Amino acid sequence: MSDTFFQPVSGFDLPRFAGVATFMRLPYVALDDPKVSDVQVGLIGVPWDSGTTNRPGPRHGPRQLRDMSTMMRAQNGATGVRPFELINCADLGDVAPNPADLMQTMSRVTSFYEEVKAKGIRPLTAGGDHLTSLPVLRALAKDAPVSMIHFDSHTDLFDSYFGGTKYTHGTPFRRAVEENLLDPKKVVQIGIRGTTYDNEDRDFADAVGIRVIPIEEFHARGVDSVMEEACEIVGETDTYISYDIDFVDPTFAPGTGTPEIGGPNSYQAIQVVRALEKVNIIGADLVEVSPPFDQSGNTAFLGASIMFELLCVMASGPNAHSSD
Amino acid sequence: MSDTFFQPVSGFDLPRFAGVATFMRLPYVALDDPKVSDVQVGLIGVPWDSGTTNRPGPRHGPRQLRDMSTMMRAQNGATGVRPFELINCADLGDVAPNPADLMQTMSRVTSFYEEVKAKGIRPLTAGGDHLTSLPVLRALAKDAPVSMIHFDSHTDLFDSYFGGTKYTHGTPFRRAVEENLLDPKKVVQIGIRGTTYDNEDRDFADAVGIRVIPIEEFHARGVDSVMEEACEIVGETDTYISYDIDFVDPTFAPGTGTPEIGGPNSYQAIQVVRALEKVNIIGADLVEVSPPFDQSGNTAFLGASIMFELLCVMASGPNAHSSD
Amino acid sequence: MSDTFFQPVSGFDLPRFAGVATFMRLPYVALDDPKVSDVQVGLIGVPWDSGTTNRPGPRHGPRQLRDMSTMMRAQNGATGVRPFELINCADLGDVAPNPADLMQTMSRVTSFYEEVKAKGIRPLTAGGDHLTSLPVLRALAKDAPVSMIHFDSHTDLFDSYFGGTKYTHGTPFRRAVEENLLDPKKVVQIGIRGTTYDNEDRDFADAVGIRVIPIEEFHARGVDSVMEEACEIVGETDTYISYDIDFVDPTFAPGTGTPEIGGPNSYQAIQVVRALEKVNIIGADLVEVSPPFDQSGNTAFLGASIMFELLCVMASGPNAHSSD
Amino acid sequence: MSDTFFQPVSGFDLPRFAGVATFMRLPYVALDDPKVSDVQVGLIGVPWDSGTTNRPGPRHGPRQLRDMSTMMRAQNGATGVRPFELINCADLGDVAPNPADLMQTMSRVTSFYEEVKAKGIRPLTAGGDHLTSLPVLRALAKDAPVSMIHFDSHTDLFDSYFGGTKYTHGTPFRRAVEENLLDPKKVVQIGIRGTTYDNEDRDFADAVGIRVIPIEEFHARGVDSVMEEACEIVGETDTYISYDIDFVDPTFAPGTGTPEIGGPNSYQAIQVVRALEKVNIIGADLVEVSPPFDQSGNTAFLGASIMFELLCVMASGPNAHSSD
Amino acid sequence: MSDTFFQPVSGFDLPRFAGVATFMRLPYVALDDPKVSDVQVGLIGVPWDSGTTNRPGPRHGPRQLRDMSTMMRAQNGATGVRPFELINCADLGDVAPNPADLMQTMSRVTSFYEEVKAKGIRPLTAGGDHLTSLPVLRALAKDAPVSMIHFDSHTDLFDSYFGGTKYTHGTPFRRAVEENLLDPKKVVQIGIRGTTYDNEDRDFADAVGIRVIPIEEFHARGVDSVMEEACEIVGETDTYISYDIDFVDPTFAPGTGTPEIGGPNSYQAIQVVRALEKVNIIGADLVEVSPPFDQSGNTAFLGASIMFELLCVMASGPNAHSSD
Amino acid sequence: MSDTFFQPVSGFDLPRFAGVATFMRLPYVALDDPKVSDVQVGLIGVPWDSGTTNRPGPRHGPRQLRDMSTMMRAQNGATGVRPFELINCADLGDVAPNPADLMQTMSRVTSFYEEVKAKGIRPLTAGGDHLTSLPVLRALAKDAPVSMIHFDSHTDLFDSYFGGTKYTHGTPFRRAVEENLLDPKKVVQIGIRGTTYDNEDRDFADAVGIRVIPIEEFHARGVDSVMEEACEIVGETDTYISYDIDFVDPTFAPGTGTPEIGGPNSYQAIQVVRALEKVNIIGADLVEVSPPFDQSGNTAFLGASIMFELLCVMASGPNAHSSD
Repeated sequence: MSDTFFQPVSGFDLPRFAGVATFMRLPYVALDDPKVSDVQVGLIGVPWDSGTTNRPGPRHGPRQLRDMSTMMRAQNGATGVRPFELINCADLGDVAPNPADLMQTMSRVTSFYEEVKAKGIRPLTAGGDHLTSLPVLRALAKDAPVSMIHFDSHTDLFDSYFGGTKYTHGTPFRRAVEENLLDPKKVVQIGIRGTTYDNEDRDFADAVGIRVIPIEEFHARGVDSVMEEACEIVGETDTYISYDIDFVDPTFAPGTGTPEIGGPNSYQAIQVVRALEKVNIIGADLVEVSPPFDQSGNTAFLGASIMFELLCVMASGPNAHSSD
Repeated sequence: MSDTFFQPVSGFDLPRFAGVATFMRLPYVALDDPKVSDVQVGLIGVPWDSGTTNRPGPRHGPRQLRDMSTMMRAQNGATGVRPFELINCADLGDVAPNPADLMQTMSRVTSFYEEVKAKGIRPLTAGGDHLTSLPVLRALAKDAPVSMIHFDSHTDLFDSYFGGTKYTHGTPFRRAVEENLLDPKKVVQIGIRGTTYDNEDRDFADAVGIRVIPIEEFHARGVDSVMEEACEIVGETDTYISYDIDFVDPTFAPGTGTPEIGGPNSYQAIQVVRALEKVNIIGADLVEVSPPFDQSGNTAFLGASIMFELLCVMASGPNAHSSD
Repeated sequence: MSDTFFQPVSGFDLPRFAGVATFMRLPYVALDDPKVSDVQVGLIGVPWDSGTTNRPGPRHGPRQLRDMSTMMRAQNGATGVRPFELINCADLGDVAPNPADLMQTMSRVTSFYEEVKAKGIRPLTAGGDHLTSLPVLRALAKDAPVSMIHFDSHTDLFDSYFGGTKYTHGTPFRRAVEENLLDPKKVVQIGIRGTTYDNEDRDFADAVGIRVIPIEEFHARGVDSVMEEACEIVGETDTYISYDIDFVDPTFAPGTGTPEIGGPNSYQAIQVVRALEKVNIIGADLVEVSPPFDQSGNTAFLGASIMFELLCVMASGPNAHSSD
Repeated sequence: MSDTFFQPVSGFDLPRFAGVATFMRLPYVALDDPKVSDVQVGLIGVPWDSGTTNRPGPRHGPRQLRDMSTMMRAQNGATGVRPFELINCADLGDVAPNPADLMQTMSRVTSFYEEVKAKGIRPLTAGGDHLTSLPVLRALAKDAPVSMIHFDSHTDLFDSYFGGTKYTHGTPFRRAVEENLLDPKKVVQIGIRGTTYDNEDRDFADAVGIRVIPIEEFHARGVDSVMEEACEIVGETDTYISYDIDFVDPTFAPGTGTPEIGGPNSYQAIQVVRALEKVNIIGADLVEVSPPFDQSGNTAFLGASIMFELLCVMASGPNAHSSD
Repeated sequence: MSDTFFQPVSGFDLPRFAGVATFMRLPYVALDDPKVSDVQVGLIGVPWDSGTTNRPGPRHGPRQLRDMSTMMRAQNGATGVRPFELINCADLGDVAPNPADLMQTMSRVTSFYEEVKAKGIRPLTAGGDHLTSLPVLRALAKDAPVSMIHFDSHTDLFDSYFGGTKYTHGTPFRRAVEENLLDPKKVVQIGIRGTTYDNEDRDFADAVGIRVIPIEEFHARGVDSVMEEACEIVGETDTYISYDIDFVDPTFAPGTGTPEIGGPNSYQAIQVVRALEKVNIIGADLVEVSPPFDQSGNTAFLGASIMFELLCVMASGPNAHSSD
Repeated sequence: MSDTFFQPVSGFDLPRFAGVATFMRLPYVALDDPKVSDVQVGLIGVPWDSGTTNRPGPRHGPRQLRDMSTMMRAQNGATGVRPFELINCADLGDVAPNPADLMQTMSRVTSFYEEVKAKGIRPLTAGGDHLTSLPVLRALAKDAPVSMIHFDSHTDLFDSYFGGTKYTHGTPFRRAVEENLLDPKKVVQIGIRGTTYDNEDRDFADAVGIRVIPIEEFHARGVDSVMEEACEIVGETDTYISYDIDFVDPTFAPGTGTPEIGGPNSYQAIQVVRALEKVNIIGADLVEVSPPFDQSGNTAFLGASIMFELLCVMASGPNAHSSD
């Protein structure tokens, strides 16, 4: 069992609405705290939305995700996994963004995650908009490209926006492929839908070998079949999981900036994560939760539930003790 | 046909947004009103949430459920049942709670329902949190334990909270089994899910013979199969129906204190009730509707729709005229 | 390809949250503008709710639908259709209602649509409550009755409300049949559900030959089977599509005045439209979006998405160039 | 002291959030109930908004005002008046409107109030939009014109809307003067402000002798000075009080259809009513509360507080026992 | 200057929407942390509302107050006080309540504050409902009764509720006087208003010598005059400040359970605190912030601003270094 | 009288909730439209918030301000000014921002306004965050520094944020002084308040001669006295008016990113504008309206009312026909 220091506060000791809100009620451990050397999975916030080309707000995501994550209890009711007993988890705080300087913030994110990686900690990130994934991958995949399972309603594979802008939340994985951070043949994107400007992104995916599973195929085949294929694509390679909350239908997750109707429901939203139990997860993110568009807090509650499911497969999966 | 006194106000006489809001636009009949002797099903509010260990609000449930219930019309569109013509229904008002004294309120609830039972009225209750079911069962099952079909995302079978507190909304059915109010072999709990503290509740269920159908099984088997089993378990015995609104997915029912994602949709929410047509229902409740977390009123609208479906099976089922 | 004048503003030129909000970011072309002669499909608002017998608000529908429709991009992600390149589309503005004079407003609507029809423009209407469809049909079906595929949770076939009121949002299609605007044998109504006053509407449907597919049948058979039948019923005749947003489950579309639980989800909401690709559509409407009950704007976003899907089948279907 | 039958339910017996919501927790007494002969002030709802030319919703006003009025207790904290002990008050229910027939509803309102007047009951009305005041005055001032103190941001003295429509919420008092229901020399309008179409209303006021006190004068002189003049204008004549909630600044009362910024605050909102203690009030209304634009319920809470203050001056004023 | 350890995180280092939310962005220091010995003012949450007899929710107050308090910067713009440089401040966390056991929670609160007092820390409390003040005073005034300046719309001096319940949020200061925790001759209550059940509370105040300043007097005299008197009443004695957010007008502070209209605006809300600069403050609380009724978060923002002002007078006032 | 082309649509012709929403229901005239040569005051949106260091959202300001501005009628009720008859006004549309490139957007804004200025049009801008004012001033004050009356709770005079970032919404007027766009001796800032980091901004103001009137002085002196001084400071020089909506108390204007409590009410918010009637206004802006934090739309309604008042003083003031 993991260190007792790293156990979340129990709702029987302090009700879940009480106390300072950290991710999952875990201890907050700063990167310069000696206890950080014992951390195996670090929950990190990136409160930043400078890459957002449409409705803003994900800079407020980490705060609200922390708040709603205090509703999570110790055990996964479906799988029985008790993640906090399997590995040492901690809230590592937020990367400090500069909301008025996109490039500087990207550098700060990469630096933070390089340090995290150097300490042998696998990161579970709460975004932030989807551009967040790029500076994270620059740290995690610095040495070699990684595989990726990507849940989203958008491919985020566009070349540029507004006539030449290369860094937006619609372009991170184009950049990641170009920068050799992702092995495109081991990338699968699930849930793609909505109106589009053109087919530039899909043409690029085809050209480099990224597997795109649009929502129509997802609904027709079902979670089991789709996830079986996704897991086969990445196999036993080091894999990054990127989960955009707009993968889920906007009725279930209204608090996001670029919703597209017709997506999965909340049960499918977590079933796809549970299917990752055999994947070698080196890191994961949950991005694009936008509290200003989430009046009830339900999107953040769903997001926190997804983060808990991601934590469970990171804690029990094949990569759980890779850095011990 | 039932007494014309007991007919709800028609939306063609007075639009549904108009008039004093009683349950289903039925006449309000106090327990000391002579007309009460003709009532067969009584709709009762228990505006109380002292058993709530998480987010409060169900004390406001009856008021908002009355408001939204005025949207119900005379006939069930799917089954054709016209409940108000089959039996005499009335709004019996609210049990007066003491929000600052849990034990006193439990006594008041039991006393109220003992009087209801003595008058041969079957109760359909609008909670209130789930602790409400315990004092109700103390009145209804005083003479002999009853069966129960229970829709919920939680078992509510824990022994105690906060290191020894026996009466909370997480413990009513543990108490009810201990007090011999429920026959555990004829209890089925449907929809259980979410993170948990531990397995204490499930171990207790196993030990006493309660059948628990988790949400994964529910989704895999479907409504028809699950409800067929549930009805077989209770058979022709006297059965109480307890419906926690958090059985339904929180996107469909956000107005509740302890939501768990991944639940049934609104169609399944009413299909499970329609499947009860052969059950000997001695009473039913719809609990945990929390208006402060239901900004749009949609949860109460769903709750009122479920109450109407419960009323239809109570009016047309085998127990409809048992107390005539 | 269509006239460049009629291309919507691209989100890459002007972000989608920017600019004056017209339907789909199309040019606004008044009926007296010379450019109107080139328009093939006109998007028209009818900001009116005098026929509403329950909760009001659809008068605000066109404004909010315009706002959310700016989220639509150039291409249908699922079908690949690029409607604005296939036909000339424009925002024709709103019909001016008189909120305090129901009969006068009906006349104004009919006059407006007669002019639209005379110019060879097929209308795609944003209501407005469902009474809107009647004055529209009076213009479009003046010469001969048309067929109709109607998505709704209500039949809107009642004779009168409140003891004799003939023109409400619950009666338009009874009037339309009586006025010989609809061929009842070529009318199909899909999604009917909810509590009812009585069976008067269904008896009328049976008597005149309207096919009613209640939601229970819809859920049992699925979209493909139901829509195959619907398309067979109308065949190659001139067909009007009337889409009441309350067809969709109220969790997905809370912003409406007369919700009924248990309806289709957002994916089914657009799948039924995509199935119309072979229908000769002479006009369509999307009605009963009520912004005051749509605090998040999600209903209008869903409504705008449905309007885009309707536009796609109107642009690519057999009737696309009928008036060229 | 008044009849114990007419005492509101105490919050110490049944908490204020509990029970069926009637106005001020008073007994509901229908017009055909024998108890009605003992009623001195009747609280009546007119759930109707067909005269609304802008944003709709006041049809929902009575329901929400009843709900929030349950927060009122027995005694006025500032003046010490205990209205329910001074006179017999009751909730007389709602006038049944026909939302789709403006003229018919006006007739129904007048008939209802004629009966109320015939029974010697002074009405305190919860609207409804401001057109409501006209059919009420037709009953109350049938025999002779009355005086009026009118709180509003609009004069409601326009001749017609939309090129000839005579009955809207912008025209009731023009009609009332024309119909000799009001003595214009004994009418004062307080709080007038906002943008206007033209000066037609003000010219009419000048022509017939209505005193208009615009908000600039109100803020410059203060409540005491303005109300002293107002009371002098009506003197000891029979006076109707008409209170449009949009008199109050829209930050304090957002739930209304035609807000105008720069109005009185909530303290001034009740001070103006307290100043009416010497006025012979024959009836009063509080109109234009629109719940769909009042997400928090605060407007209805303010409205219920104003109704309570009106009741206090009706109960303690010179006209209190005029009909005994 | 104070210890650098106790400086809040600057918004220039980490934007104010980022990071784990503690009170004022101060370090979280548990009572068993060695650093606690250096704390001079401790900010403490009491997430509890079991004494609430009306609308619930203050249990969520501390969480939301922490969230909004991160908007506070280092310096008081009006007075120039930089509290964090004058004294060592820290977030001491929340007292763990038992939501289902009122008496047990009161004991826990008193124990926590006894420890705080023993360590020479002056507490600034974020409630919780107003019953919170009683167990706090039991710790702070254990040795001798203290003075109190109390901002509220209610006196909270009632003897009991619901026929005998002694511990509710309407009774704390009756108990405190009875228990000799308050010197009633040195207690002043400011802002009292609203409807009342009777005069029992005011009679008690008169009998024991509590000075009550109703809102009418407050508005007539103004902040300066009222506060001069209040400060004279307490003089140089040890004084507790109790600030119920419902002192402020509910338009400015809607997120509370028992609002009363006609109160002070937000400028007056902070001016009354700034007037306390000469008072020997031994502790203070801000109670009754109820997030479920505060959809926009503005009440908590106002509440956090009031807490900051309280902190400034505690840091710069005569008692600032009393425990050094 | 002005050109009939430039008259807004009347609410009597088309109700104010109807039609495509342009500013004040004016015609939309693009910069390349020949009609632009007749425009005297142009209403322009700058949907941009890249300078926002705290809560985002002003990019949505112009859309919502257009929507609510349709509530404005033809005449100022207080001053009698009918702006649209005095000068030709038009909606010039939005400047196209690049949300992911701050510097590029600043260039685009300046270019747009240079063209506006070259055509002799005075701009009335709807922001956008406060950084918007800088690129606007770069166009308007290119030839010579201008005077400014600035309503705000912040000085926006800081040198840099986040350790060196020069362009944020907290720095525009520091830059404008440095770039010689403003004559600091003829700049007055009114309403300054809230917590601060330090006094750097105030020290700079003192050093260059900017007059800062903090809110305490504003409340003590009143609108008339403060505005008299402000108008004297700018005299007859060319003056820019910059109005940050957070000047107003956040209860009246919650929809903004950096609220500070204790500000003016809505009456004072417009009185300060009416006092500008003698000022030579060369342009004006209303910035920082953030719809995601303005759930009710009341902030935008207040903002639109302020824009109307600004338009009235621009239309009737000494500079009204300066470019004729």
